[in-house]
Amino acid sequence: MPGVPPTRFTYLGPAGTFAEQALRTVPAASRAELIPAVDVVEAVQAVRTGDADAALVPLENSVEGAVGATLDELALGEPLMITREVLLAVTFGLYTRPGAELSELAIVATHPHAEAQCREWLRANAPQARYVRTASTADAAVGVARGEYDAAICAPVAAEQYRLAELGKDIADTPGAVTRFVLVSRPGPPSAPTGDDLTSLVAFIAHDRTGALLEVLTEFAVRGINLTRIESRPTKERLGRYCFFLDCSGHIADSRVGEALMGLRRICADVRFLGSYPRADGVAADVRPGTADADFAGAREWVQRLREGRAH
Amino acid sequence: MPGVPPTRFTYLGPAGTFAEQALRTVPAASRAELIPAVDVVEAVQAVRTGDADAALVPLENSVEGAVGATLDELALGEPLMITREVLLAVTFGLYTRPGAELSELAIVATHPHAEAQCREWLRANAPQARYVRTASTADAAVGVARGEYDAAICAPVAAEQYRLAELGKDIADTPGAVTRFVLVSRPGPPSAPTGDDLTSLVAFIAHDRTGALLEVLTEFAVRGINLTRIESRPTKERLGRYCFFLDCSGHIADSRVGEALMGLRRICADVRFLGSYPRADGVAADVRPGTADADFAGAREWVQRLREGRAH
Amino acid sequence: MPGVPPTRFTYLGPAGTFAEQALRTVPAASRAELIPAVDVVEAVQAVRTGDADAALVPLENSVEGAVGATLDELALGEPLMITREVLLAVTFGLYTRPGAELSELAIVATHPHAEAQCREWLRANAPQARYVRTASTADAAVGVARGEYDAAICAPVAAEQYRLAELGKDIADTPGAVTRFVLVSRPGPPSAPTGDDLTSLVAFIAHDRTGALLEVLTEFAVRGINLTRIESRPTKERLGRYCFFLDCSGHIADSRVGEALMGLRRICADVRFLGSYPRADGVAADVRPGTADADFAGAREWVQRLREGRAH
Amino acid sequence: MPGVPPTRFTYLGPAGTFAEQALRTVPAASRAELIPAVDVVEAVQAVRTGDADAALVPLENSVEGAVGATLDELALGEPLMITREVLLAVTFGLYTRPGAELSELAIVATHPHAEAQCREWLRANAPQARYVRTASTADAAVGVARGEYDAAICAPVAAEQYRLAELGKDIADTPGAVTRFVLVSRPGPPSAPTGDDLTSLVAFIAHDRTGALLEVLTEFAVRGINLTRIESRPTKERLGRYCFFLDCSGHIADSRVGEALMGLRRICADVRFLGSYPRADGVAADVRPGTADADFAGAREWVQRLREGRAH
Repeated sequence: MPGVPPTRFTYLGPAGTFAEQALRTVPAASRAELIPAVDVVEAVQAVRTGDADAALVPLENSVEGAVGATLDELALGEPLMITREVLLAVTFGLYTRPGAELSELAIVATHPHAEAQCREWLRANAPQARYVRTASTADAAVGVARGEYDAAICAPVAAEQYRLAELGKDIADTPGAVTRFVLVSRPGPPSAPTGDDLTSLVAFIAHDRTGALLEVLTEFAVRGINLTRIESRPTKERLGRYCFFLDCSGHIADSRVGEALMGLRRICADVRFLGSYPRADGVAADVRPGTADADFAGAREWVQRLREGRAH
Repeated sequence: MPGVPPTRFTYLGPAGTFAEQALRTVPAASRAELIPAVDVVEAVQAVRTGDADAALVPLENSVEGAVGATLDELALGEPLMITREVLLAVTFGLYTRPGAELSELAIVATHPHAEAQCREWLRANAPQARYVRTASTADAAVGVARGEYDAAICAPVAAEQYRLAELGKDIADTPGAVTRFVLVSRPGPPSAPTGDDLTSLVAFIAHDRTGALLEVLTEFAVRGINLTRIESRPTKERLGRYCFFLDCSGHIADSRVGEALMGLRRICADVRFLGSYPRADGVAADVRPGTADADFAGAREWVQRLREGRAH
Repeated sequence: MPGVPPTRFTYLGPAGTFAEQALRTVPAASRAELIPAVDVVEAVQAVRTGDADAALVPLENSVEGAVGATLDELALGEPLMITREVLLAVTFGLYTRPGAELSELAIVATHPHAEAQCREWLRANAPQARYVRTASTADAAVGVARGEYDAAICAPVAAEQYRLAELGKDIADTPGAVTRFVLVSRPGPPSAPTGDDLTSLVAFIAHDRTGALLEVLTEFAVRGINLTRIESRPTKERLGRYCFFLDCSGHIADSRVGEALMGLRRICADVRFLGSYPRADGVAADVRPGTADADFAGAREWVQRLREGRAH
Repeated sequence: MPGVPPTRFTYLGPAGTFAEQALRTVPAASRAELIPAVDVVEAVQAVRTGDADAALVPLENSVEGAVGATLDELALGEPLMITREVLLAVTFGLYTRPGAELSELAIVATHPHAEAQCREWLRANAPQARYVRTASTADAAVGVARGEYDAAICAPVAAEQYRLAELGKDIADTPGAVTRFVLVSRPGPPSAPTGDDLTSLVAFIAHDRTGALLEVLTEFAVRGINLTRIESRPTKERLGRYCFFLDCSGHIADSRVGEALMGLRRICADVRFLGSYPRADGVAADVRPGTADADFAGAREWVQRLREGRAH
């Protein structure tokens, strides 16, 4: 389309990372410009400055847990909004330059998360190898191609891109690891409810209020909302101060979610809404009796009638 | 005023009851027609049929507890609304026809509630007297005036009206008893909030829902609303089924009370709103931080902005 | 058995009351001395003084609700203990002296609870009759036999005893009413657990503690204990002060019930244990996962091991 | 002392790390053998195998959050026990070989956590420098001494040890960062209560139980126990499954903490006790009314008396 610039996506690069793989599952990415970033901060910052329209960054991994840098970017600084989540099965292999043998490897490079997930395999199969950390698994592949390291633990897609040979396939000690990525953009209207959505937010609890976290969870429970994740992060003020990342089922357009957010807003020191977006894990929405939009509308109308003395 | 009929109030009669005394503290009663009723049911029924505009009936006593007939009338049948509460210190005396002696009394008449409250005094001071029940303490005074009984336990105002002589004053075993009366009318708009109001309702909990009462109380607690009274009554369906009369601080016009009522409406089998009216005991309203109308309005507006993508 | 005095039971008399009927369902009553009492206070007082071994008194009715006098006797004064509950279907009939006609009745006598339950029938079938209150339904039967009243609303058993003729059978407006009686004795060891028991207690909450009732209910909920009844009664100190009668499933010998009682003891101003006794309504006990005695024993042993450093 | 081998402590090495600094504040460390380990896993594994008596490892940092490797070692594998916590103010400086200038630095090495904390300072003061990751901040100092990097961000103590020159002092973007270390040993009896202790544990909630986390928090709240930290970690089974690290005030020897642990044991799929140890942050213990050991003992004795029928 002449005159219309393509959408620009940044992602945790370099080319060949799991982030790129995840980004390619987003339909809009097929006709967009994809820009690798050095790290999460750079990827996200490009969105804030307008250099990119959205950034795909990892949020958590089923083995390694939360990605602190992503959480910090979401909780602090200029507000951002999650518009989509992408779940990607993470498969690691061991790759080298053609001709090398497993028993001869001296230096194996990879990202610390990948190393942690393949540690036992490496001890059993290449006990002589020394491990060197890289900024991403794709960086390790690049380094092997350049001759800096003997082998890399990385995704098959990266090995393919840098034309490396496979010495081991699916080498993670715990098979079936999944990374959850989120697509982050500047704030705007949330995407339309699909009937099976997640809502993410950060709650900064009031620290002079005992039992504040219990109160926060009760705001969801009392409205029948299921929390799918709770993750604490330091607020960086001092040890013992945390904020809480909460994911719940439902969309901010749902009455129960909106009213729960109102409750948090009233009892918390601060609340940051991070977005409502379609749920990717295929778990069906579970709306408890009495918490559907029609129930809220009916109850609201009833109270309104009582206030006006129209009916009892 | 020609052509304008006066307001008509019924009350638990006959003339001379504490109910009449309580009704005379209501400003509007001074220029109204006051109609004694035989019992609570008759007083309230006159309101339902339009024969009276309002009825003053006892709701609870600080010594004898709830008045079942009043609760049943409020919970069942055509809806009614409480528009005012009146607290009346209840003082009992022993009254007779002029000339009688304490030691000669054979039959002492009174209402069972009054008898229960003066039992020890009677045992100590007139152990020979037999007790006969009457429908009200004023009925006992009437009976003494007619010569049916030797003495009556009743209010000083009733003794005065029927020109009886005092044999004992303030004879209740527990001094300081107070009866809480309510003024009941047909449903209409609640009276304007005064800043220190009570709201009354009946909750019929869903019996297939475990922990339902705890859920009901949580709807109030989560919004910082203080419950001042909870009273169970059988629903009359079968043993073990109860409905709950709840009084809470605040007015249905208050956001926190309105939202709590909505919550009950959503989780209960049925809810009957009984009215919001000025609190009579002089206890100051206690609005917890984050639960004032401005807090609700601010939170609602915030969620609205988020839903529209206007600001974060 | 020479030299061994029989057990002595008092009950809310006179002979022919529902209380006597209920007492006759207690196996031990068949070979015991049954002593009618004028009212609940007298029946219970005989137990306190040792004149009787136990008293059978009404606690609540499925239509009329709690019996205040019984609650007050249980909550105040010398402690007593409930050792058994008896549920009795309450059937009312209209009885007169042989030869009388329904349309001729001028005065119908009965207890106020009975009158309340048969009011509509009476209006429809004998609108001309005036109602006179008696201390019990059996008293009304006695009065009819003596010629004081024209008819009595009472139990069939009382009519039979005083040889009255039936003018109406099963005349209660709400059929199927049940009265729950309790057998009360001086404190002692609770009866052995049967696997399906109830425990009764009175909780006096600390009034300077906000949300105290919610805390009390939570002590039960957190241990998976089902509350079958909650009834407030004034403490008689001043209006707005209540104590709470609680019935829960389970026996004080059960770990979960014992620990809940400990919790109440720690957070309440006072707690009065009223007894653990077999449940009479045939509802099966429901022990939630993790709350059986074995679960408590296992958890206690585990903590003990941790404290001693024996195992983790 | 001849024949008695000294205590052996491992710590996250190499020499010069903050972990060593923290370990030196432990009195027993002054006469012990201190053994640097390559990483958390190696440090902890030495304790499990008996090669060391205890390991000092970082648990969380007030800026960077939890240390996943430490959490995973505590939650999984052979049980370990925390016997002490050490809080250490973390100060970063920029160090180089004598003679180098800030504007000439090409490669600055440090641990990613340190890099994250000094990023803005580095951008402002040495924008030309490229950052290289090392396994610890002390490793970076070693590398500078060996000539591998131009400068290191590390602790002053490491710079001193490797005789580096200071180019910047206290360069963290958020001053006042604190790292919380824990001393970990094989399971044994917890240290004696001091009156101001913390208790750590891992709760694996039952995933088929809705509201399970709320139930876990309620077990603490209902006994007046303050939670000082809650941290989720993936269980590594699949995305969306987490276990919860909980720190609470109090000692397992305290009745309230013991009973809360019992509660968790009954409702959770699994609970791992991680230790009770003196609280290091100087916040005074706060024992709520009704939750002291004497309250528990009194309540237990009361229930025991009731069960035996000795007193009411």
